[in-house]
Amino acid sequence: MDSDFGIPRELSDLQKHRSLYEPELPPCLQGTTVRVEFGDATTAPDPSGAHTISRSFPHTYGQPLAHFSGLLQKSLMLRVGVVFCGRQSPGGHNVIWGLHNALKIHNPKNVLLGFLGGSEGLFAQKTLEITDDILSTYKNQGGYDLLGRTKDQIRTTEQVNAALSTCKNLKLDGLVIIGGVTSNTDAAQLAETFAEAKCQTKVVGVPVTLNGDLKNQFVESNVGFDTICKVNSQLISNVCTDALSAEKYYYFIRLMGRKASHVALECTLQSHPNMVILGEEVAASKLTLFDLTKQICDAVQARAEKDKYHGVILLPEGLIESIPEVYALLQEIHGLLRQGVSADSISSKLSPWASALFEFLPPFIKKQLLLYPESDDSAQLSQIETEKLLAHLVEAEMNKRLKEGTYKGKKFNAICHFFGYQARGSLPSKFDCDYAYVLGHICYHVLAAGLNGYMATVTNLKNPVNKWRCGAAPITAMMTVKRYSRGPGTSSIGKPAVHPYALDLKGKAYELLSQNATKFLMDDLYRNPGPLQFDGPGADAKAVTLCVEDQDYMGRIKKLQEYLDKVRTIVKPGCSQDVLKAALSAMASVTDILSVMSSPSSAQTPL
Amino acid sequence: MDSDFGIPRELSDLQKHRSLYEPELPPCLQGTTVRVEFGDATTAPDPSGAHTISRSFPHTYGQPLAHFSGLLQKSLMLRVGVVFCGRQSPGGHNVIWGLHNALKIHNPKNVLLGFLGGSEGLFAQKTLEITDDILSTYKNQGGYDLLGRTKDQIRTTEQVNAALSTCKNLKLDGLVIIGGVTSNTDAAQLAETFAEAKCQTKVVGVPVTLNGDLKNQFVESNVGFDTICKVNSQLISNVCTDALSAEKYYYFIRLMGRKASHVALECTLQSHPNMVILGEEVAASKLTLFDLTKQICDAVQARAEKDKYHGVILLPEGLIESIPEVYALLQEIHGLLRQGVSADSISSKLSPWASALFEFLPPFIKKQLLLYPESDDSAQLSQIETEKLLAHLVEAEMNKRLKEGTYKGKKFNAICHFFGYQARGSLPSKFDCDYAYVLGHICYHVLAAGLNGYMATVTNLKNPVNKWRCGAAPITAMMTVKRYSRGPGTSSIGKPAVHPYALDLKGKAYELLSQNATKFLMDDLYRNPGPLQFDGPGADAKAVTLCVEDQDYMGRIKKLQEYLDKVRTIVKPGCSQDVLKAALSAMASVTDILSVMSSPSSAQTPL
Repeated sequence: MDSDFGIPRELSDLQKHRSLYEPELPPCLQGTTVRVEFGDATTAPDPSGAHTISRSFPHTYGQPLAHFSGLLQKSLMLRVGVVFCGRQSPGGHNVIWGLHNALKIHNPKNVLLGFLGGSEGLFAQKTLEITDDILSTYKNQGGYDLLGRTKDQIRTTEQVNAALSTCKNLKLDGLVIIGGVTSNTDAAQLAETFAEAKCQTKVVGVPVTLNGDLKNQFVESNVGFDTICKVNSQLISNVCTDALSAEKYYYFIRLMGRKASHVALECTLQSHPNMVILGEEVAASKLTLFDLTKQICDAVQARAEKDKYHGVILLPEGLIESIPEVYALLQEIHGLLRQGVSADSISSKLSPWASALFEFLPPFIKKQLLLYPESDDSAQLSQIETEKLLAHLVEAEMNKRLKEGTYKGKKFNAICHFFGYQARGSLPSKFDCDYAYVLGHICYHVLAAGLNGYMATVTNLKNPVNKWRCGAAPITAMMTVKRYSRGPGTSSIGKPAVHPYALDLKGKAYELLSQNATKFLMDDLYRNPGPLQFDGPGADAKAVTLCVEDQDYMGRIKKLQEYLDKVRTIVKPGCSQDVLKAALSAMASVTDILSVMSSPSSAQTPL
Repeated sequence: MDSDFGIPRELSDLQKHRSLYEPELPPCLQGTTVRVEFGDATTAPDPSGAHTISRSFPHTYGQPLAHFSGLLQKSLMLRVGVVFCGRQSPGGHNVIWGLHNALKIHNPKNVLLGFLGGSEGLFAQKTLEITDDILSTYKNQGGYDLLGRTKDQIRTTEQVNAALSTCKNLKLDGLVIIGGVTSNTDAAQLAETFAEAKCQTKVVGVPVTLNGDLKNQFVESNVGFDTICKVNSQLISNVCTDALSAEKYYYFIRLMGRKASHVALECTLQSHPNMVILGEEVAASKLTLFDLTKQICDAVQARAEKDKYHGVILLPEGLIESIPEVYALLQEIHGLLRQGVSADSISSKLSPWASALFEFLPPFIKKQLLLYPESDDSAQLSQIETEKLLAHLVEAEMNKRLKEGTYKGKKFNAICHFFGYQARGSLPSKFDCDYAYVLGHICYHVLAAGLNGYMATVTNLKNPVNKWRCGAAPITAMMTVKRYSRGPGTSSIGKPAVHPYALDLKGKAYELLSQNATKFLMDDLYRNPGPLQFDGPGADAKAVTLCVEDQDYMGRIKKLQEYLDKVRTIVKPGCSQDVLKAALSAMASVTDILSVMSSPSSAQTPL
């Protein structure tokens, strides 16, 4: 197996052209001397969980933010390891390239070791030394095939100890973990364990996950999300054009997005399909299967009245778990499966109401709901064809309305799609190429500054690269503590972790959707962003959600510090009594307001 | 419905950029004066069918080839109608644009009417006058939504008469039919009927079909095929990268291609997956389901021995009908369905052997095989999940081998995909933009020359646009007569028609595949052409099958004429006895060879 990694690949013309592209660095990272500037000590977003987190991470909680700004940096000799954790995300290779480049710029003797086959390579100490030659056919290309990946967990004592001894044996100064929510939680845990064990290896996490759900005050977007949304939007637009040309089908398209519907929302804003069903909306409004069916049928009927018999409807794969009664049914099924009840005899052991729902469902979906749950207690979402279930229910209801005479249009026809794997291995978008490369550079600076348990961050991403702000934040500052859980996954209760960020129904991106939903539904305002371009118009397009959201948390934290410094400068001993009085009164009122807003009882979810 | 057509669409940046691109014309079509040059009278490719065809098409059979070459052309006032027939194919809009442009260049008073909603608009005389304004947001864009489309047949007496009276009422000089094999057969029939009825309207066909199966001596490729193969290759490459990164899944991907496997072959040559199962191969070798399963299992096992547990396998949607025993089973089922036997009771009425096969199949495929056949007697191929059937059979066999100890590798895992609708509405590739636009121009010249029952053709397509040869050939010269048929579709026997061109297992494209098949299977030589580019490297890439095949039939016909003319010039009365003797002896031998080769008994399938 190993002999296959790092082999140069045959590249197509476009790939060759891509491999020659070198992303620009933000000014703060240019040159060989980069200064790290520390901000205030960090806290956790939810004050009530802060104590639990600080107890779990005594060595790494409460560290300050770091900003990079150019000037002064010792050129240490560094040995660094890097590992892909979790599902492949377009752009992952560029993190390694950026890291390698930064290491070599600062000291040609620096060493970068890639672990082969993901975390298993980390445990088994299987490495490949990264060189310019090896990287040449992987720059700006998709997949994780430079190093491969396997399991996505570094969690059990055995696994953590294996990682520790690998890092010690290889005398690593740093370990870079490329992954999503779970992998970065593991990275924080590893950092804490290493610190306790007085291991010299510092751990850095990089936010790389195509779901786009590793989002918080410090992290605006994830490597891969931009590409996934663009490739899926291309396909959705193709289907919209198809629908509009043939005028006889409703397309139901299931997209990636397990715990959160970020991909579905972004694709909707890029391609303007007729309808999108967001998991967060359904959960918040407690919509039942019956409600959803009715909602779609009413839309189909309204369109039929305008002589339109086609349409495109998006949904995330996690939707099925957001529908309250289906979720409860799944919990019962999973409970029975865990007790060892065979799938065949489950239906007879369900509670009366769950049994009633189960029997109502079509056979294909019954079979899929009976699959054994995944390691994170969720259903096997990629296997459950929610799009077919909805199409089936809508068809039945439309036929009923037709029979009863309440619907007088043509027969309803549906075609179903699951866009789950087609985009994951895509060539990365230019944005993801740049973002990943810059993050790779930042990893070097985090390690060179001797920081442990941090995540590399870039903010102000909606602006051009030369306006990007580079920094790092302790992963513990992104953690929250769950105090309840819907399912039997009680193991996660009370444990600090980075959790998937749910779509914000009060956010600007969702607001943009709400404002346009009726027009999208009725007027077929299909928009076609086209295939991913690497040159020419469209090549520099950015995600709509990234651009409409008003983020730049890190920029604001810096601005606040400037204000505080300014107050200190103005109100020095010797200033006038009036100035001092004004300052005191103003500061008293500021602190009052902030204390009230940040008391545990009024705590908000992050962002 | 109608109010929706011709409305300007909101365009994305890439679409705007595309809408400003104007394809180059080959030199022979440049300027306002284009000369038509006639070649020899045409015959049919299969001599034994020629008589039948000439009897069915007394007015339009045997017309000469036409070449266009610049100089002299009357600027008549022309009224032309255009209609989309059959499934939408990327590039269709550019045929209309090219035609409109040519009409307006030659006489601003020329009129182009588009029929709304396909052939139904033609029958019902629903038109939209094409203008520059209307075209502006449809240039170089996908879909058929400028005019829409519905049914793909113009065949019954009622339909043909409706078309005739529409053309008469609208005083059309020409009718352009944009479509595939079926629509062009209909176009030829319409031309013949119009000629007989002394209707002034001339009919021209344009080869537009994403299946790529309208191929013969005169037609090298079809509008849409290039785009479909590129978009599918992009997705296949993404899946290959995914397979290589995760190293745990076999992907089974079903592609478009009902009667022929052109899309599957081209995508294989572009993206180098591990395996492709071509319908023509299976039919030629009479491979059974069992053979196919064994073949795939042996491949999986051979790869496992090299520690590879991933792979990508392509198949065309028509494959299921190429497997002899499944085809026979389908014929029995369709026969019973046509007799009115309900799907539920069919299994008990099957012949013993068909029943045995049917019972052996998994439930989901049984249900799909029981669907009512389509109007062309084929099964509902888009609904039959052959990829899942094969994955299921391979998994069962691998588990058996594992149990018996003949296979010692890891468990076999499959993920299935159907890439059927994702590409059909795509923005067209640059090649399809150019090809369609030039064909549109040719349609004008065919009509201006007063030709009836011709198809617009461009040859030498693998070379740059300035080397393209523009012409037109009578559709009857592309017809063959089927003398037997496997199914109950006896209606088509003995009737001349343009038939789908099956993949040539002796051709150069297939040879290229055969030479590389083992390497593709074992060495993971995945190639990623990337997403469709409109600028920069890769934007001008052409289909591999187009480039490797040695075509240019039209160029050779011209070359032959030059030789014959030369002989005539050299051997004029007054030439020496020796020259005349040499000429006679050489010509006698040439004609002897050709008579033997073109006698009915040794007739070959076209190309």
